[in-house]
Amino acid sequence: ALSLPSLAQTGSPNVRWRLASSFPKSLDTIYGGAEVLSKRLAAITGGKFQVSVHAAGELMPAFGVVDALQSGSVECSHTASYYFVGKNKAFGFETTLPFGLNQRQQNAWLYYGGGQQLVRDFLKDFNIISFPGGNTGVQMGGWFKKEIRKTADLKGLKMRIPGIGGEVMARLGAVPQNIPGGDIYPALEKGTIDAAEWVGPYDDEKLGFYKIAPHYYYPGWWESNSSYSFYVNTKAWEALPADYKAAFEAAAAEANIDMMAEYDFKNPTALRKLVANGVKLHAYPQDLLKAAQDAAFDLYAEESDKNPAFRKLYESWGKFRGEVMLWHRFAEHTYSTFVYNNPPKRSGKA
Amino acid sequence: ALSLPSLAQTGSPNVRWRLASSFPKSLDTIYGGAEVLSKRLAAITGGKFQVSVHAAGELMPAFGVVDALQSGSVECSHTASYYFVGKNKAFGFETTLPFGLNQRQQNAWLYYGGGQQLVRDFLKDFNIISFPGGNTGVQMGGWFKKEIRKTADLKGLKMRIPGIGGEVMARLGAVPQNIPGGDIYPALEKGTIDAAEWVGPYDDEKLGFYKIAPHYYYPGWWESNSSYSFYVNTKAWEALPADYKAAFEAAAAEANIDMMAEYDFKNPTALRKLVANGVKLHAYPQDLLKAAQDAAFDLYAEESDKNPAFRKLYESWGKFRGEVMLWHRFAEHTYSTFVYNNPPKRSGKA
Repeated sequence: ALSLPSLAQTGSPNVRWRLASSFPKSLDTIYGGAEVLSKRLAAITGGKFQVSVHAAGELMPAFGVVDALQSGSVECSHTASYYFVGKNKAFGFETTLPFGLNQRQQNAWLYYGGGQQLVRDFLKDFNIISFPGGNTGVQMGGWFKKEIRKTADLKGLKMRIPGIGGEVMARLGAVPQNIPGGDIYPALEKGTIDAAEWVGPYDDEKLGFYKIAPHYYYPGWWESNSSYSFYVNTKAWEALPADYKAAFEAAAAEANIDMMAEYDFKNPTALRKLVANGVKLHAYPQDLLKAAQDAAFDLYAEESDKNPAFRKLYESWGKFRGEVMLWHRFAEHTYSTFVYNNPPKRSGKA
Repeated sequence: ALSLPSLAQTGSPNVRWRLASSFPKSLDTIYGGAEVLSKRLAAITGGKFQVSVHAAGELMPAFGVVDALQSGSVECSHTASYYFVGKNKAFGFETTLPFGLNQRQQNAWLYYGGGQQLVRDFLKDFNIISFPGGNTGVQMGGWFKKEIRKTADLKGLKMRIPGIGGEVMARLGAVPQNIPGGDIYPALEKGTIDAAEWVGPYDDEKLGFYKIAPHYYYPGWWESNSSYSFYVNTKAWEALPADYKAAFEAAAAEANIDMMAEYDFKNPTALRKLVANGVKLHAYPQDLLKAAQDAAFDLYAEESDKNPAFRKLYESWGKFRGEVMLWHRFAEHTYSTFVYNNPPKRSGKA
């Protein structure tokens, strides 16, 4: 059921692809990444390369996209690789891992540090070729009904946190739950869960968690960046003419930088709105962050011992993580530390 | 002397543009941004939209590009807007200002915060339309023969630092010099200057400054990001077919994210090499950073009072600066602070 290109009169073929997004339209900034790609491809090709974007659930469930790509029943998807860690934890690297890279570091690893090639090697078995396609930056650390003052306060706490982040939380004593976005609010309200993580100020504010769980923690240490991907079925990709492949690569890179800029524009306003609504901002206690990081790296070492696909990615990722952080702690971090702690005496008319 | 498109047999016109870069080939990562654009445009259009890239000096001097675009003698350029603050200080905003935005914040302001439109409004008088096209991130703070322990140590110090950064340095007592990259090393060697700033570890290492000025300071507070631009003559732009415009926009965005990733990949290795060669890394003293920031914002207020073009950009930039930094100091900065100060006990096999 793949659309193969057909030569049109002018020499450029008409290509119609369907894109199965793993995201609902309500996550408009993330979902919008696929629309940025689709609109750009249509504009570049004078409407000849059309990618129709379908929200999660329209063509298939959000988490059905890898199976659909593997069987070739859809040409492409916009998704988060880490939704598929149940198939293999190696799926985690392309989106993020707890205590991982920030947005710039993730892009550097993927585009220049060999990450993208390693990810593609891993995805060959799934008939997928992937392209980075959007990022949220460091996410927030979730909403809690009660304050968390020390690691022990997590004991028995039922928290909506999926994936490897949830596994790390479990090692700290919490009871992770996997609940779709739309069901989080009622679960918090009924008391089925005590806490929940979602994305950041812009997306979280819309779901209204602050009304019933006012303690908002930072940072989201399980999601120090969240890199989304355009997944393309390899046969569909190989059937594309070279100019359409080039257009797709450029449009994906544009969607990648565009989403980050959009979040950096939207989040500040949303944060102000949340604080005006009485939200209490808290940093995670340092001892909790240390315990969580130790637990995360224990998990990676254990997984590496038994999973060669994970180990191969982990070695590259772990080495790059150390190198890039050593550099960023100098100019980048020292600058940020100064300006965030020393607002200028005069700052325009603002 | 503009190349206007001519309709070819297949419907897509052949377009040949010349791009005058303001950068030498030796600045390979920055210069390479124009090649990323050029190669991508050729690939997307099957070779029909060709942009030939010319290094600084080939077609015109590095700083002649704005005049050439204004008169229409070249179709496009890859440059840094702040090279032209001598024409009007409002040119500063598109690249960077002392104590300005970091790379993500700059992109957010340009793409979503209204910055790009304000910049384009300002550039109309120069017959230029601009597109962000690459970034270095926070740069390093330069090379000094002697340690700088307090602000007063800058008194009378001759430093190669051009533009508004140089003006701020002058307010702190230093004597700024404007010297092309290739002449910095001999000037340091002869003692004509006592200090010099360039870019960051990767570019600085190649010029060998560490051999004669071993004290390497961070951060480069006058260049908290350095955003390069593709400048296009407005008539050439308007003559492009819509699909080529779309291709140009996507390729420019790709060049933008690509350069940052390339620097984040190259700088860590270069920093290690410098340290192995005996370079002494120092953070600028806090009192110097405070004095420099106060001087910078004084300068902005004074310029706003007399320069309406500057004021218009400054009001938007200053407001966004405050908002986005308020947000980034929570999740982003707290995460970075933790991970940079707490390397994990286990970090892969690295």
